[in-house]
Amino acid sequence: MNEAAKTLDGWYSLHLFYAIDWTSLKTVPEDDRNTIVEEFKKFLEGLETVHNNKEGSHAFYNITGQKADLMLWFLRPDVKQLNALENELNKLDISDFLIPTYSYVSIVELSNYLAGDSDEDPYENPYVKARLYPEVPRSEYVCFYPMDKRRDGEDNWYMLDMEHRRSLMRSHGLIGRSYAGKVKQFITGSVGLDDYEWGVTLFSDDMLQFKKLIYEMRFDEVSARYGDFGAFYVGNILNIDELNDFFKLN
Amino acid sequence: MNEAAKTLDGWYSLHLFYAIDWTSLKTVPEDDRNTIVEEFKKFLEGLETVHNNKEGSHAFYNITGQKADLMLWFLRPDVKQLNALENELNKLDISDFLIPTYSYVSIVELSNYLAGDSDEDPYENPYVKARLYPEVPRSEYVCFYPMDKRRDGEDNWYMLDMEHRRSLMRSHGLIGRSYAGKVKQFITGSVGLDDYEWGVTLFSDDMLQFKKLIYEMRFDEVSARYGDFGAFYVGNILNIDELNDFFKLN
Amino acid sequence: MNEAAKTLDGWYSLHLFYAIDWTSLKTVPEDDRNTIVEEFKKFLEGLETVHNNKEGSHAFYNITGQKADLMLWFLRPDVKQLNALENELNKLDISDFLIPTYSYVSIVELSNYLAGDSDEDPYENPYVKARLYPEVPRSEYVCFYPMDKRRDGEDNWYMLDMEHRRSLMRSHGLIGRSYAGKVKQFITGSVGLDDYEWGVTLFSDDMLQFKKLIYEMRFDEVSARYGDFGAFYVGNILNIDELNDFFKLN
Amino acid sequence: MNEAAKTLDGWYSLHLFYAIDWTSLKTVPEDDRNTIVEEFKKFLEGLETVHNNKEGSHAFYNITGQKADLMLWFLRPDVKQLNALENELNKLDISDFLIPTYSYVSIVELSNYLAGDSDEDPYENPYVKARLYPEVPRSEYVCFYPMDKRRDGEDNWYMLDMEHRRSLMRSHGLIGRSYAGKVKQFITGSVGLDDYEWGVTLFSDDMLQFKKLIYEMRFDEVSARYGDFGAFYVGNILNIDELNDFFKLN
Amino acid sequence: MNEAAKTLDGWYSLHLFYAIDWTSLKTVPEDDRNTIVEEFKKFLEGLETVHNNKEGSHAFYNITGQKADLMLWFLRPDVKQLNALENELNKLDISDFLIPTYSYVSIVELSNYLAGDSDEDPYENPYVKARLYPEVPRSEYVCFYPMDKRRDGEDNWYMLDMEHRRSLMRSHGLIGRSYAGKVKQFITGSVGLDDYEWGVTLFSDDMLQFKKLIYEMRFDEVSARYGDFGAFYVGNILNIDELNDFFKLN
Repeated sequence: MNEAAKTLDGWYSLHLFYAIDWTSLKTVPEDDRNTIVEEFKKFLEGLETVHNNKEGSHAFYNITGQKADLMLWFLRPDVKQLNALENELNKLDISDFLIPTYSYVSIVELSNYLAGDSDEDPYENPYVKARLYPEVPRSEYVCFYPMDKRRDGEDNWYMLDMEHRRSLMRSHGLIGRSYAGKVKQFITGSVGLDDYEWGVTLFSDDMLQFKKLIYEMRFDEVSARYGDFGAFYVGNILNIDELNDFFKLN
Repeated sequence: MNEAAKTLDGWYSLHLFYAIDWTSLKTVPEDDRNTIVEEFKKFLEGLETVHNNKEGSHAFYNITGQKADLMLWFLRPDVKQLNALENELNKLDISDFLIPTYSYVSIVELSNYLAGDSDEDPYENPYVKARLYPEVPRSEYVCFYPMDKRRDGEDNWYMLDMEHRRSLMRSHGLIGRSYAGKVKQFITGSVGLDDYEWGVTLFSDDMLQFKKLIYEMRFDEVSARYGDFGAFYVGNILNIDELNDFFKLN
Repeated sequence: MNEAAKTLDGWYSLHLFYAIDWTSLKTVPEDDRNTIVEEFKKFLEGLETVHNNKEGSHAFYNITGQKADLMLWFLRPDVKQLNALENELNKLDISDFLIPTYSYVSIVELSNYLAGDSDEDPYENPYVKARLYPEVPRSEYVCFYPMDKRRDGEDNWYMLDMEHRRSLMRSHGLIGRSYAGKVKQFITGSVGLDDYEWGVTLFSDDMLQFKKLIYEMRFDEVSARYGDFGAFYVGNILNIDELNDFFKLN
Repeated sequence: MNEAAKTLDGWYSLHLFYAIDWTSLKTVPEDDRNTIVEEFKKFLEGLETVHNNKEGSHAFYNITGQKADLMLWFLRPDVKQLNALENELNKLDISDFLIPTYSYVSIVELSNYLAGDSDEDPYENPYVKARLYPEVPRSEYVCFYPMDKRRDGEDNWYMLDMEHRRSLMRSHGLIGRSYAGKVKQFITGSVGLDDYEWGVTLFSDDMLQFKKLIYEMRFDEVSARYGDFGAFYVGNILNIDELNDFFKLN
Repeated sequence: MNEAAKTLDGWYSLHLFYAIDWTSLKTVPEDDRNTIVEEFKKFLEGLETVHNNKEGSHAFYNITGQKADLMLWFLRPDVKQLNALENELNKLDISDFLIPTYSYVSIVELSNYLAGDSDEDPYENPYVKARLYPEVPRSEYVCFYPMDKRRDGEDNWYMLDMEHRRSLMRSHGLIGRSYAGKVKQFITGSVGLDDYEWGVTLFSDDMLQFKKLIYEMRFDEVSARYGDFGAFYVGNILNIDELNDFFKLN
């Protein structure tokens, strides 16, 4: 097998983005609206339980701008659990007021570019395990975008040899590492699963760091020559106890 | 005739993708909803009969993410039967709650790149027949994507000579064969029938294998320089006896 | 005038594609639905009369897949008649259940690449006349797609000299001619009239021939280097006496 | 200032395209429908008055195919008048049955490529004035499309020097001039105002001339190497006294 | 850190574009409509207070053409305030008649290309502060567009060295400066925050200046070779006291 094609793969991942149909929601009497929100909160509390039991993880954010209002990110050991979650969510009353705007299917992934040569089973390495089956942080801000490695004339990532790619990725990784403590980065692979090749999900308590990190990377050859980027979604965390206010009409 | 343009062609193929309009479905009283689901199950059982009689085949999956909820794949000897199936499906009550999201028209195809030189009529070869008129497996997971061979400046597949293409396809095929037993692959040709040139439908009991196979192939020159890919759809099987649960509201 | 820009131009052409809004149509009581279908059949019979009188022509097909359910192709000597037909169609009751999905405006065209040098007025040549003012066949299957000649870096059709283009078109035409008796081809020019430069409408009693013809052509330099293709629509003929069944609900 | 960037600028321009929502319009009782049409006719007569007073101009056409049913083109000395016209139109009852499909914002423009060297103020030249503040003709047919000058690798219009561009434009202009008397051409500039750089609006009493002119131009280097074209809209004139028939249902 | 990646960053920025659903709004009784408009005016007056207190700024314009009817631009020190403003706006009654059409998330940005070498903290420089936390002008006209620096084969901005980029930007800046007094320009950076890399918001009392400025810049190498532009939105100011007229039906 092509060396570069070796990846370590963890939990299955599903990003769901929704706009809120406020016009319809406003026609619902206040009591019914409260019931709808309470049911949704229960669903989110169920997610918390799974997260606390480390049987999966998730994130829930309020997206900025009109691309979406809400982002739900689910991580589960089995893709069937993701489909079941979608099915459960669709049946909630709140879903009658959520308009699907974008979704992304992928798998938490560690590339082999930076892998060591030890004989150890990487899936037993605690550091690797923590990254493949992550506890998603509760940072103030999130940033999600999908991306491809470019295959365009002279700029074709997949025609580079392994050593070249490894060396480019090493310098790329250095930029990422210089943001340690400021930005937490999760890479999910989606070749064969969704329209781009990777999803990138970033967390920070300072949204400006997303801009700084990604702008700095753009001058790095890996992004400059070989990166093709999809849509960018940013937002701030929406805690369960803020949900009543978020949906409250006066 | 250009040698490369020779193909072996089997059943006509139609992939249909639908999102479910849950908001409307929820307004239907439970009894009526049950009737709707029962009618749909009958339709699916009719498909099973054709499949068991080897007069065609089909697949029915629950797609992950928001691109679609359901995928129906029909294979029939005659394209008119496909149109008749679409017409029949449109008239089912369940269709009032299905929103078309994507479809693909093609024909099961074997390319001549790997063909032998025997004088035998390939359509009489049992191995060939089994691939042209396939019994679609009931694997846990499906992956569908359409694709083109690229025609872009220096990367123009159709300007390569036959020998070059044959040799590239041979090495490409080796990757596919290394997944034998893990992934079953169906190629359907759609030049002149739909917007991409081929559809690829993969089946596996382990969704991760789709990612591994397609990622490994991406480093192969056929994909790296000459592959242009459309949207990817993945999902898990939806058995008839799971349909009541799938549509059940509490 | 640039020699290559000379064309022979015949009837004005309008392709209309519609999806059927079955969900709404099903809410119409059976009697009213029958009235709607009868009115539509009368409209189609009116088209037949024009076709039989050779004052125009048309085609009516059931498109496969979700891009559209119906294709109406109108040919008329005057573009105002096309607009009037659209206006008439929009006012039919059936149109309340037809969702426009695509249309194409063009003019039946013969290129001058294969023209002879005679002094004869080509518009008086019976062979030319039959192609410019065609009687559209009632074949089992139709295929429509729009296309451009590419203008991209080294692959710029419009920067080739006339002799080069003529020679490329000659070999391209040979492939087309080898399908004589199997596929009937109509070229309509749309430079300045619609978003692509040409529309291609093919008819055959065997849908597989569309795939074979277009796939073979794709290896020909005219398509391989210089062809840019839009969406492909295929379908089977819908005769007036099949319309009641097509729309019938049980 | 870069010489090429000098333009002469006249009236502000707004092209509006609408599809008619016939399904809703048909539900309106005949008397009310007549009132709606009469109000719309009054609005159009108001436009006529401005046109006759040479305080602006406009055009009103029935677009062929499904991209739109109606095109309204407004020319006014002040962009605020265009916004006011849009606001007025939106408040008409007819607008409840018009679905916006495309619009274009620009300014009537004469390029300086063909400018003479005289000291005269061009805005005082009667010929220039007539072109910058034009009386839009009432030709049978219209053609509108937006376009860019290409900036793509070797084919970058904006990297050519002024002399080169001037000489290319001169030969391009010769083709246009050979259609004098057959096609009237209006160029509106939209750099910084809308998504393409120019809008082209053509008028003729013979729709075929649009195809001939634009096809001939396509072989000219300015179009062949440097032209990028948006969507093309064609249609026939809709006179106020034809409006009752156009909207009439039986 | 890559020198070029250093930016000075000010207020968070959110552009919101909406079309008005006039058809629905017209069904609202006049009294209720007035109440809706008054509530919206109160919201706008609240924005004015923040603007006057220099705790943020905003703009409100009537967009020309069908891409949108209204543009709201919000600037705030904290992105959470932007999300809160969106939430507040969504809950206004007027929002039931506003259709979101486009939005843009970014941060007011000064690039370091033209930075001096002093040791001073730039965030303490009054000129810099006035640009990072700007008081948006109340000019007659606005122009907004997002843009990328191109990464395409030979035309790859991010592969140029810092000195080259600095020198290109210097000459680009000269064009901008020649419009001082005519056009006010605000650059907001959106790398990692939205789909393009920058947003440009221009203000002028003469819309023609937008066209002149951007057309002149297009011949400058920074735009000609390295600029990729998104959609352009232009419009005229909508003052609070004009709102009743704007929404008034007779």
